[in-house]
Formats: sequence, C-alpha cells, structure tokens
Amino acid sequence: MSKHRHYRSAEKTLGTSPGTLTYVGQEIEHQTEIKKIEYNEREYHIKDGTKLSSCTLPIPGTPYVNWLDVDGIHEPQVVSAIGQQYHLHPLILEDVMNTEQKPKIDLYDDTVVFVTLKMLHHNRQQQELDVEHVSLILGQHYLISFQEERTKDIFEPVIERIKASSGKTRRNDADYLLYALMDVIVDHYFLITERIGEKMDELEEHIVNQQANQQTLATLYKLKRELAFIRRTVYPLRDVVGVLLREESTLIKHATLPYLRDLADHINQIIETLDAYRELISGLMDVYYSIVNNRMNSVMKTLTIVSAIFIPLTFIAGIYGMNFDNMPELHTRTGYFWVLLAMLVIAVGEVIYFKRRGWM
Amino acid sequence: MSKHRHYRSAEKTLGTSPGTLTYVGQEIEHQTEIKKIEYNEREYHIKDGTKLSSCTLPIPGTPYVNWLDVDGIHEPQVVSAIGQQYHLHPLILEDVMNTEQKPKIDLYDDTVVFVTLKMLHHNRQQQELDVEHVSLILGQHYLISFQEERTKDIFEPVIERIKASSGKTRRNDADYLLYALMDVIVDHYFLITERIGEKMDELEEHIVNQQANQQTLATLYKLKRELAFIRRTVYPLRDVVGVLLREESTLIKHATLPYLRDLADHINQIIETLDAYRELISGLMDVYYSIVNNRMNSVMKTLTIVSAIFIPLTFIAGIYGMNFDNMPELHTRTGYFWVLLAMLVIAVGEVIYFKRRGWM
Amino acid sequence: MSKHRHYRSAEKTLGTSPGTLTYVGQEIEHQTEIKKIEYNEREYHIKDGTKLSSCTLPIPGTPYVNWLDVDGIHEPQVVSAIGQQYHLHPLILEDVMNTEQKPKIDLYDDTVVFVTLKMLHHNRQQQELDVEHVSLILGQHYLISFQEERTKDIFEPVIERIKASSGKTRRNDADYLLYALMDVIVDHYFLITERIGEKMDELEEHIVNQQANQQTLATLYKLKRELAFIRRTVYPLRDVVGVLLREESTLIKHATLPYLRDLADHINQIIETLDAYRELISGLMDVYYSIVNNRMNSVMKTLTIVSAIFIPLTFIAGIYGMNFDNMPELHTRTGYFWVLLAMLVIAVGEVIYFKRRGWM
Amino acid sequence: MSKHRHYRSAEKTLGTSPGTLTYVGQEIEHQTEIKKIEYNEREYHIKDGTKLSSCTLPIPGTPYVNWLDVDGIHEPQVVSAIGQQYHLHPLILEDVMNTEQKPKIDLYDDTVVFVTLKMLHHNRQQQELDVEHVSLILGQHYLISFQEERTKDIFEPVIERIKASSGKTRRNDADYLLYALMDVIVDHYFLITERIGEKMDELEEHIVNQQANQQTLATLYKLKRELAFIRRTVYPLRDVVGVLLREESTLIKHATLPYLRDLADHINQIIETLDAYRELISGLMDVYYSIVNNRMNSVMKTLTIVSAIFIPLTFIAGIYGMNFDNMPELHTRTGYFWVLLAMLVIAVGEVIYFKRRGWM
Amino acid sequence: MSKHRHYRSAEKTLGTSPGTLTYVGQEIEHQTEIKKIEYNEREYHIKDGTKLSSCTLPIPGTPYVNWLDVDGIHEPQVVSAIGQQYHLHPLILEDVMNTEQKPKIDLYDDTVVFVTLKMLHHNRQQQELDVEHVSLILGQHYLISFQEERTKDIFEPVIERIKASSGKTRRNDADYLLYALMDVIVDHYFLITERIGEKMDELEEHIVNQQANQQTLATLYKLKRELAFIRRTVYPLRDVVGVLLREESTLIKHATLPYLRDLADHINQIIETLDAYRELISGLMDVYYSIVNNRMNSVMKTLTIVSAIFIPLTFIAGIYGMNFDNMPELHTRTGYFWVLLAMLVIAVGEVIYFKRRGWM
Repeated sequence: MSKHRHYRSAEKTLGTSPGTLTYVGQEIEHQTEIKKIEYNEREYHIKDGTKLSSCTLPIPGTPYVNWLDVDGIHEPQVVSAIGQQYHLHPLILEDVMNTEQKPKIDLYDDTVVFVTLKMLHHNRQQQELDVEHVSLILGQHYLISFQEERTKDIFEPVIERIKASSGKTRRNDADYLLYALMDVIVDHYFLITERIGEKMDELEEHIVNQQANQQTLATLYKLKRELAFIRRTVYPLRDVVGVLLREESTLIKHATLPYLRDLADHINQIIETLDAYRELISGLMDVYYSIVNNRMNSVMKTLTIVSAIFIPLTFIAGIYGMNFDNMPELHTRTGYFWVLLAMLVIAVGEVIYFKRRGWM
Repeated sequence: MSKHRHYRSAEKTLGTSPGTLTYVGQEIEHQTEIKKIEYNEREYHIKDGTKLSSCTLPIPGTPYVNWLDVDGIHEPQVVSAIGQQYHLHPLILEDVMNTEQKPKIDLYDDTVVFVTLKMLHHNRQQQELDVEHVSLILGQHYLISFQEERTKDIFEPVIERIKASSGKTRRNDADYLLYALMDVIVDHYFLITERIGEKMDELEEHIVNQQANQQTLATLYKLKRELAFIRRTVYPLRDVVGVLLREESTLIKHATLPYLRDLADHINQIIETLDAYRELISGLMDVYYSIVNNRMNSVMKTLTIVSAIFIPLTFIAGIYGMNFDNMPELHTRTGYFWVLLAMLVIAVGEVIYFKRRGWM
Repeated sequence: MSKHRHYRSAEKTLGTSPGTLTYVGQEIEHQTEIKKIEYNEREYHIKDGTKLSSCTLPIPGTPYVNWLDVDGIHEPQVVSAIGQQYHLHPLILEDVMNTEQKPKIDLYDDTVVFVTLKMLHHNRQQQELDVEHVSLILGQHYLISFQEERTKDIFEPVIERIKASSGKTRRNDADYLLYALMDVIVDHYFLITERIGEKMDELEEHIVNQQANQQTLATLYKLKRELAFIRRTVYPLRDVVGVLLREESTLIKHATLPYLRDLADHINQIIETLDAYRELISGLMDVYYSIVNNRMNSVMKTLTIVSAIFIPLTFIAGIYGMNFDNMPELHTRTGYFWVLLAMLVIAVGEVIYFKRRGWM
Repeated sequence: MSKHRHYRSAEKTLGTSPGTLTYVGQEIEHQTEIKKIEYNEREYHIKDGTKLSSCTLPIPGTPYVNWLDVDGIHEPQVVSAIGQQYHLHPLILEDVMNTEQKPKIDLYDDTVVFVTLKMLHHNRQQQELDVEHVSLILGQHYLISFQEERTKDIFEPVIERIKASSGKTRRNDADYLLYALMDVIVDHYFLITERIGEKMDELEEHIVNQQANQQTLATLYKLKRELAFIRRTVYPLRDVVGVLLREESTLIKHATLPYLRDLADHINQIIETLDAYRELISGLMDVYYSIVNNRMNSVMKTLTIVSAIFIPLTFIAGIYGMNFDNMPELHTRTGYFWVLLAMLVIAVGEVIYFKRRGWM
Repeated sequence: MSKHRHYRSAEKTLGTSPGTLTYVGQEIEHQTEIKKIEYNEREYHIKDGTKLSSCTLPIPGTPYVNWLDVDGIHEPQVVSAIGQQYHLHPLILEDVMNTEQKPKIDLYDDTVVFVTLKMLHHNRQQQELDVEHVSLILGQHYLISFQEERTKDIFEPVIERIKASSGKTRRNDADYLLYALMDVIVDHYFLITERIGEKMDELEEHIVNQQANQQTLATLYKLKRELAFIRRTVYPLRDVVGVLLREESTLIKHATLPYLRDLADHINQIIETLDAYRELISGLMDVYYSIVNNRMNSVMKTLTIVSAIFIPLTFIAGIYGMNFDNMPELHTRTGYFWVLLAMLVIAVGEVIYFKRRGWM
C-alpha cells in the first residue's frame, strides 16, 4: 500500500512551471487506446482505436452525445493533443496525468466540469487494493473519460447498456453519462466494502473464539490502514457530488438531480459503513488485548499459586534437613509423619484460602 | 447482528442500470397484503386485501384521506404496479425494496414526500434486534406505507385510533398521518432504549459488586455494538424531520408543525440517551478493567509476599543443611533453637515492614 | 441516579395518541397548590390556595402582571383545567406533566413562550441529586409556573422580592419575571457545581497524598456520572436562552435582553466549569492509576529483588548439602567459612549492582 | 490554583436580585486609588488620587481623551458612585466587582463597550499564577479601567508612553487606548507562555535522559492544569476581539482595525502555543509511562532470569541431598564433579538460550 | 526544534509600542541583499545589489511588473526604509521582521495584500528542519518578497523561469508572481512530507520485523512532534489561499484563480497526508507497545513455567533430605529410583497440562 501514500511525487515535479505535464504513475508499456462513442435515443456509433485527429469538439447542434473513452494516461503527447483539440485548461491535463491527485471537482467557467476520482479493484493475487486514476471531463454534449490502462476498460458495463437498448442512458444528455460512469465506480466501492466486512466477520469469530494471536493483530492493523485509505478515497466524492447537486454548473440538467442525489446517498452509506468498520476494529482490538491480558493473567496466577504453595513446604523440609546435633524432633519415632501431615494441612489450607478469595 | 451491517448487497445489483428493482432482504413466502383506508372527520372505510387494480391516485377533490398500507415488499411486480398507478419515480421504488437503504427523506418536486426508516423490534427468543424496512410516501391527500411482511402490521395502533373516534388523526390531512406513523416507530425506539437501559443497570450492579467476569465484558461489547447500530438507525431521522420542519414541501401543513417539533424532540432525546449509554459503557469497561487489574494485583502481591518471606528462611535452613565437617554451630546444644528464633524474628520483621509500607 | 436516566417512561405512553396527559414521575400524595400573584410597580396581591375557577387569562388591558405559581403536576385534571382556561396547546400540557422531558423552549405563534427546565437540589441525606421538573409559560402579561410538589416552593425568593420593594421585578413585565425565575434555578446550579468542586478538592488531596484506594475510584466514577447528568440538564438551557436572546418572540422586551445575556453568560460559565471538572476527573483518574501502578511496581520490584539475592545463595547451600562421599571441600577446616564469605560477597555484589542500575 | 476554579461564589450571591454589587474576591485593605488622565496630541494631564466627585462623563466636545484608571474594586460604594456618574448599567458594575467573572464583551446600545479580562502574573515566591480581574469600559471619548489593587498599576507602561511622546496613543481616540491596554495584558500572556515553555524544555530533557520520577509526573500534571486554566482565560478573548473587529459598535474607528487584527493574531498564537504545549505534555506523559514501564520490565526480566537459572540447579543439588541409603551415584569417586559439570552445562545452556531469544 | 516553539520572544518586545521594529530571529552577519526584477512579456531587467534609494513604488502606467526580492530581514533600518518608500503600514514591517510570526494574510484597503509564510528546508547535517520566515507584499503591479538570509535565494527557480522564456510568469501580472512564489514554497513542503514518509516506511518495517527498541519509540515521538510542527506551519496557508480565492482583493485577477485553486488543492493534500501520517504514527506506537508487551509476556511466561516445574520437585527432594531417624522410605532399596520416577511423572504431567492450556 505504501505506493499510494504519497499523492504526488515531489521530486519529479519540483521547480517546474505549474501546468507542466508529467506522468508520475507506474511504468506502462501498452499504447493509449481511444474509443469514440456517439449516441442518441435512436442510434449509436462506437469506434474503437480512434485516431487523435478525429478527437474534436462536437459541432454545435450535433444530434449526438459524444463520449471519448481514453484508456491510458501515460503518454503526455496524447493527453496534450486531446487537451488542445478540446480547448482544455493546462491544469486539467496536469491533473489527468497526475495519478497522485486526490478526488476533486473543478468548474471552468460553466463550459467544462472536471471530475477526478479513483477506481478501486480488489487484487486477489496480492491481497491488496489496486487503485486506478480516473478523470471525467464534461462539456457541452460531450464527455471525455481518462483511465489508467491497467486492466480491462472499467466502463464496459455502461457501453454494454448503451448498446443494449435505448434506455435511460441513451435518452439523456452527457451529464447523465457522467452520473452513470461515477455510479459504476461507486458500485465497486460497495464490493470492496463488502469484502472487508466479510474479512472482519472472520476476524471477529476468530477473536471471540479466542483463537487470535499476534498475526490477528497485524491483520487488524493492516485492515485499519486499508479502511483509512479507502475513506480518504471516497470522502472527497461527497464534495464532488455536492457541487454537482447545488447546480453550480448549467451543464447539469434538472432531471439528473434525483440520480445524483441517489449517488450522494450511496457515497454516504459507504462512508458510514467504513466508519462503523473502523469503530468495530477498535472494539475488536480492545477485545483482543483484553483476551491476551486475561490469558496472561491466568497463566501468571496459576503458576504463582504453585510457587506459593510449595515454597513454605520446602522451607519446612529445609529445617529438618539441617545437621544440628541437637534437634530433638528428628529422633522421635513419628516426627517424620507429623511433619508430612503438617505439610499436607498447610497445602490444603492454602488451597482453601485461595479458592475462597476467588484466586483459583 | 452481522446481517444488518451491509446496507446494500453489492453483488446482486452491480452493473445493473440505476432504478432496477431488486429485493435484497430475507426470503419471504407470504403474499403481499394491501389494506386501503379512507377516512375523514365523519366516516372511514377500511378494505383488507385490496386488489392492485383499486390502488389508484385519489381523484382531485376527493373528500377522504387515502392511506394504502402495503404489508410486504418482496414482490417486485406488486411494488412496480403500485409505482405505476401512483406515478412514482423509479428511484423511490428501488429504495422501497432495498431493505439495506438507510433512513432518509427525498422530496420530488413538491408532489411527493418520500420517507424511509427502520422499525426496530426486540426479539425475545434470540435476544437480538429485529429490523424492518419501512417506507412512507406522502402525496396530495394520500399516503402509501410499505413495510416488510415480518410480524404483524406495525401500524395497527393508528388504524385502531382511526376506528375508535374522530380524534386528531381523523380531523387532519395525510401529513398528520405521516407524523402519526413515524411517531409509532419512534415510540418503539423508546422501548428498545429502555430495555438496553435495564440491561445496563444489571451489568453495572454486577460490575460494581465485583461479580463481573470475561462474559460481562463480552456482553458490554455486544451492547456497545447494538447501541452503535441503533444510533445509526435513529440519527438520520433527525435530518428527515428537519426537512419536514423547514416546510420545504407544501404538503406539510402549518398545523402539523408542533407535532413534528415534538417528534424531533423525542428523536433528540433518544439520541442523547444513546450517547449517554455509550459513555456509560466506556465508563463501565474502565471500571471493569480497573477491578480485574486490582484483583490481579492483590493476587500477585500476596503470593509474592509469601515467596519473599520464605525464600530467605529456606536459605538459612540450607546453610545448616550443608555437610561441612567443621561447622561449629551444629555442635552447640542450643544452636538449633537459636536458628529457629532467628527465622521467626526475620519473618516477623518482614511482615512488619510490609505492613508499614502498606503492602499487606 | 438511575431514575433520572430514562427521560420518558415508554411503556406507560406507548400507542396513546400524542398529547395525551400522563404523569410519569414519582408518586405524590399532596394536593396541587396554586398561588396567584398580581403585581405592578405600585401594589401587589398574593392569593394562596387559589381555586381553579379563578385561573383565567388576564383581561386585555389589565394593569397587573399575573403570575400563576402551580406547585404540583401530578393531577392531570388540574393541569388540564388550567390548560383549557389559558387556551394552551395540548403538547404544552403533555410536556408540563412529563417529568422525563429534557429542558427546551417552544414558541407558539408569538402568543406563548413555553420553557421547561430542571431544578437541581443537593440531597444531603442520600448524597444524591434531587431533580425537579419545572415549566414556565409566558403569555401576554401573564406567566404560569409549574413545579413538582417535592420540597418547598423554589420560587419563594422571587415572591419575597416582589413583597419586599417595588424593585426591578415589580417595575417590569412578565418577561422579566420569566428571567427572574430562570435565574433562581441557574443560581442553584452554581451551588451544586461548587459542592462538586469541593468534593473534588478533597479527592485530589486524597489522591495526591497517596491515600487513595479502590473506593476513591468508585467516588470519581460516580462524580463523573453526576457531572455528565448535570451537563445534560444545563446544556440545553444555552439554546433556550439563545432563542429568547434572538428576540424570536415579541413577548420578550428589549430592556430584558441585558439580563438574559447575563443569564446566558452564567449558563456558559457553569458549562465551562463542568467541562473543566470533567477533564480534571480524567486527570485524577490517570494520576490514581499511575500511583496504583507505581506502588505495585515498587512492591513487585522489592520482593523480586529478595528472591534474586537469596535464590543463588540457596543454590550454593544446596551444593554443599549433597551427600556425595567424595566432596573434598567438605573436609577442609575452613571450607564452611569460605563458603559463608562467598555468599556474603555475592549478596553484596548483587545489592551494589541493583543500586547502580537504580533498581533499589 | 484552586481559588481560581469557582468563577462565582454562589453562596454569597444566591437569592439576591441580579445587579446587586457584591465583592467576592480576596480581602484587601488598601483604599481604591483613582488616576485621571486627559490627553490629546498636544498635551496631557495626569491627576493621581482623583476624588470621586471629579469623575464625570466628559462634556460633549471636549478636546481630550479621558481615561479613568481605577486601582481597586473591593469598595462597592466607590464602584457604585463611578457607575452613577457615568450612567453605567447595573450589570456592568456587578461584573466589574465579580472577580470570578470570566472574560467577555458586552455592547450597551452603541454608547458603551464593556470588556472584562484577566491579567496573569507569574508569582515567583509561590510558583503559582496570580490572577487579576480587569474591566475596561469604553464610551464616547472616555475609557474607564478597573483593576484589582494587588501589585503595582499594570497599565504603567501605557501611561509612560502617553507621557513620553505624542505617538500613536496620543494621536488616537479612546478606542486605540482600549486596544493599547488589552495589548499590554496580552503581552503578559506571552511571558507566561514562555515561562511554561522553558519549564517544559527542562522536563523534557529530564524525561528523555531518563531522570524522571514520580515527582516529574506530578509536575506535568500540575502544568497541564495550569495550561488548561490559562487557556480558559485566553480563549474568550478571541470572541471579545472578534466582536470589536466586526465593528459592531461605532465607538471603534476604522483606523484601529489593523491593530485589533494584530491583537487577534497574537491571541491566536498564544492559544495555538498552549494547544501545542498540551499535546506535548500528553506526549511526554506517554514517554514517561513508556520509560517507567520499560525500566520495570527490564528489572523483572533480569531478576526472573536469575530465578530461572538457579531454580533447576537447586533442584539438582536437592536430589543429591536426599538421604536414601541406596543412591549409587553418591558413592562414586567423581560423581560430585560430574554433577557440578552438569550444573554448569545447564546454566550456560540457559544463558545461551535466553541470549538467542533476545531476553538478556 | 525547541527554538521554533516560541513564536515571539516576549521579553524582547514587552512594553514597547505596537509597530516597533525588533528583529527576534537568529544572529546574522551578512548584509541584506536586494534584487530588483522588472519584466513583461517582451523583456526583463534584473539588478543585483540594488540600492535602497532605487526601491520605489512603480510609477502608475509602468509597462513592467516590479519585483523586489529582499534577502535578509535582520536590519531594521533597511526594512524600515523599504517600508517608507512603498508606503507600507508599520504593522506589516513588524510582521516582516518578526520571525516568530505564524503564516497569515492581511489585506490593507485593497491596495496591499500581505502574506507571510514559512519556508521549510530539511537540514541533512543536523537531521532537523530549518525554518525560514518569508513575507510577500503584493501591490499594484509590484511585489516585494522578504526572506531570512540563511541559505541561497529560495526564489531562484522563479527567477530562472523569468529569464528562460516569456512563459506564463512573464505574461501575467504581479498576482501570478505571488502565486508562483507561494507554489515554490508549497512544493518544498511536498519534499519534506515525502522524506518523512520514507522515514516512516523504514520505521514501520523495523517495527513489524520486531527489531524495534526504546530508540525506535524516541524516533516516533520526535517524528510526531515534527509532524505537528509542519502541520502548524502549513495549516494557516489554507486560510491564506482561501482569502485570495474569495477575491476579497481586486489585486487578484480572475485568470489567476485556477492556479490558486490548484495551490489550495496541493495544500489540502499536504495537510491530509500529514494527518494520515499522524494517525499512522499512533498506529505504529500501538503496534510497538503491543510487541513489547507480547515479548515481555512470553519471557515472563516461559520463566515462570520453569519455576512452576522445578519448585514442586525441589520440595520432594527436600523431604527426603530431612534427617529424621525414622523415615522408612530411605532405607528401601529402590526408594531413590521411585522418587526419581515420581519427579519425572510430575514434570511431564505439568508440561502436558501447560501445553493443553496453550501456555507453552
């Protein structure tokens, strides 16, 4: 997870002029793939492998919603070219390429809404979270989506829906598309949250059944860090959707508001669940410590009781092991047995005393 | 309780278009029961087992308040049909069926107020909380209530009041009915809170009388989780009533405001009580830990004192148990008794010293 | 204190229509006593044992301020009759009788200001706080005060001031009277706070002088709960006075504002003091734990040192207690004394080592 | 410090009418001293020992700023006389004499600004904080300052500045004087804060060098309480200056605002420093506990290792100390030496094992 | 770090009139260096070692942006002279020289924006943070920057950019220059934050691999203090940029807002990262304590088990070491071997019991 902690690789960019395009993410070898999707209620066109030259601002009055789905943000020249053709502010392009940028929304003069957020995948091999940097740029009847070219296209389900039928996505403008893409990402957060929930149920059972060990604590600690990371990723979305909901841009149509409200609601539920988990983890840690402490106490108690019983007896034995010439008891016939009896009485007395005080 | 933790079963709904109806709650076999209640100050009609076809928007100018009491939300076709006949937004229907939806309020263009909240029952058999998902839809002179078909109709007391006399409920419009139904649910929260209060009094007595054990701690932990769950259920209601109180919808009449204010007041009292309980539980845990620690300390102290007294004595005995040929003391007549005396003096001295320092 | 924890006895009122009058406080046998006090700058009339029938809204234009001082809220018919004669909203009457109602203010259409708060007495016999439910209803030139009939009339000092001279109380309208009654109650909070302060000074001295024991901790815990309870009682008054200060009702005259500001100031000082005490208690608990831990440590350390010194010595004695035939040392003339010397050297060496390391 | 904790001596004032003048501070024997200072850009007059009769509201149109510097607030008749001659509200006079009053600001109808605050001195003899109650009353071209007659006049530096030159103080109106007096007091807070900072540096060095003992903890605890007390004294000043900055009174001129902003800035820096210190103290306490715990651990560990090594050896010696007739080993020639060797091997083995596991 | 804790050396300035220039920072021997940079889109002039006399307000209508880069703030007469020639408020000059001043922004009547902030360097020699006090004064077409003359000119990169090309800096007015200088400083914060991040990764690995010792804790504690210090330095910048973003001064052009928004975003990311680190440190401390505790527990447990096994055996040996005449077992032929067998059985039994209970 340590690679996600530094949002911005300072040394790569220190001293350069603001707005300079620098890719700071992981090394990638594939080429950027660009899909162009045009649709309206009646028809749709999808062009895979679109050339840069055909990426242009839609002509005013075009009957289509234009969606440019860019898969790969590691080639500055590509991002820069798209930026030029769509007249995007250089700071937008900087944020598109800066994989360390945290989620945020920026409005540029009512002509462009720029949203950047994080896609989270659960990586089964490494038992870690995969993070993908996603940027969405909404303009007049067009939307440009940028994603790191990591796995498959994460917006596939939306493309499928556009192909499938002339449903809500097809009937609405680009602002609904913005909502739909964000919804896909937020739905993945639910998945991640649920996985963590299952892991925590496991851990809880483990701990409550007293099978926990030092390893359990490490897992709890790791989970806590993971929760904090997800929270930092999800929390800013609250503000992002808040800005959209307050209709600060005319690009957002009134009819899309109920859907955005629903999205805001989902984000809140995720945050709330994350917070509940965090509290639960603290609780589990406390229970774990209490169990460990309790076990240690019972070990120490039992063993100390053993000492407390035998040490006085050994002392008595020691007395009659002394080699004084004149020790009258030693020469009586029953002295040995009386001493054994005395030892027994003392031992039994101690046990009774300890039991009464609730120490055994 | 673990089933209540995930508010939304992500895998069931991932990738579907928003607004798709999916029931995510527990499996239910009964059929949905629909009651239609029409009333005004002079008369009332209650129809059990109403057919779907007779569920329609009341004709403008109808002299009755129309209440559709739907018992069961597991049949998508039923919910969908009601939605169509009352012209409800698809997102409302999604939330009606989504038992994982947390409490919230949504206003749809001043024609519909949509409230969703949770009914809490105390399940005596399993010593657990039962949660029922309830949705209330307020429109012009009508109200639709949806509840999970779990136990009996939770709104029975309100129906009884409508039958009983032409009181406040009968004299007022559907917004008062909305208040009355929410009030029934909030009253149940008081019951739940009181049960927890009694349990905590028990636990406190237990702990203060030093009868607590590891089990007590587990109960405190469970109670803490339960409190957190109830708080998460009750807390959003504050906002729900807040929205109603700010008269953001014209469906809420001015005369209903004092009652809503009273309701808000009750919700606040419940939240405050829950918070006081939570603090109390933390306090009790601290007291418990302190008692456990104290008991452990006194065990360890007593036992270590035993060792500290007898180990030096055993050492002395050990000296005179040595087999050196030339040990003059051994051959004196009173050596043995002097040694015994010395041991006694040492033991008594130690006891006095320990008592003086407050260790015994 | 446990009786104060549940603000509303849910089972007594569950399912009843809102506004139904139910007394939920302690059983009381005395009859309700009603005093009627009429005054202006020139004269005053006080009627003890006023009959219900003479409790009426003052005629518009009356030259007196009318104060109805009702001592006892356990008789629903009395409260209900007063309510009818003064045209009070049923929810007001419900709150007057509901001793579990927390402090609040309600404005009814600029004709009535309803304030409910708690009188706190320190009960010397039981070393507990006595809580009395007080309601104040301010209308046009009249004020009705309700109090639980527990001890003597808590508003006696104000009545005395009215009798004594034509001072500020006599010169002003009913809103000043409202202020004066609230001031009496807040002054009592100062008394309570001071008592707690003294108790804490005692406890602190106890703890710092290391005379604390398990009992001290219990007292601290009880004090902490008491503080939390008082805070919950005082805190809502901040809002109550805030509403009055914002002149949300025309019943509050401008000239009364400085006095209300003074009252708000006193309330803030009490809350601040309570918070400072709470922090102090946490600090004292930490000090207590630290002292207990320290004492335990020094016990364990001393005793373990005893063991560490004598166990090796005992081992040496054990060696020369063995019965091997061929143990040359045993048969030397000075062996015994050399061994004793060795033991002494080891013991002294250990002591020096422990002292050097700061363990003794 | 305990005398500063109760802001208001409740029993002295309980039941009296609000606005009654009662002095609740420490007994004082000196007489109240009144200085009258009149100044403008060209000239100044200072009259020591001014008589009460000459304390009057400046005549409208007077060319001087009038400053009445009252040293002593323990004589109700003096305060009351000044109040009458300057037409001050009775609540102002009550607060002037109430040494338990916490810092606050009150505006009276745009004719009077009333500020009360605390002067803090560091008392070297008793190593305690001395607190002096100061009140400042700003009116049209006049300012009245009240201070407890404890030490010397705390406003001496300002008087010196007025005498010295016709600088900023002389060129400005009474509102700048108000600022100047508050600035003197706030500058003293910096001194106090710095002293605490030095003490904390000392303590930190002490603790980090492991020279801390139980006394250190007590000092930390005392320091924490002192910080909390200072914070409670300084914090309300934020609001006081805030009210002045928002120009809620016309008595504050626009040109004074930069100075007030500077003052607000200083207050914020003090509060921030206090908060940083508080956090530091918590950190130091944690470090202290960790060191104590660590030391205890190393003591216990070392001593327990001693036991663990010698107890098995003593057991072996015990075996060959038994007096059975038939113990073949005893009668071999080299048995004794083999046993000694075995003991050595065991001891060395244990030491190696402990070292390997990092216990020694 | 202790030198950075007291923001203002109170004793140096106590009692002086506000606005008096006093340098409170470290002693410096070099002379103040002044650079004057004039530039516009077409050309630029840079004059090193500018004389005080040529530092004047730019003539209205000048075609250049004027930047006065002052390196050194320890000479009151220099700062004062610049202040006079640019007509700066005395409080600005006081803050320029007061190295203890925390970051803030002040607007003076729409003609001057005054920003003060801190440059942080990482000092490799002393492993400490170096702090440099920086002030920026923005006026109509001019900007004055003051920095402590410590290392090299921290604004070198911006000068280089001005020299290099007629880029964004050259095309824009002085407000963009203000942004550019602040951006340089904030970029350094990223560097510092990253260094801390790396240190924490190291520490984490250390702790998780159980190589931590008392020294690790000290480092964590130091790191925590460093984080708190940086946070106190960075946090106020949020407000500074906030004031600029709200366009409270007309000196800030609309076109600069996106850049300031970007800056605000960076500041937020730094604060967020710092907060995440702080939480991480707390987590690491908990893990460390848990590991230490665990290790101590396992030491104590193992050693106590040794005692518990051998003490009873030693007791048995003690019995048969007694010298009673009549001890029949001693005289049997196989007694010795039976006793040895019994000891073995007891030891093995104890080991099995301890293993079963999970103690070994």
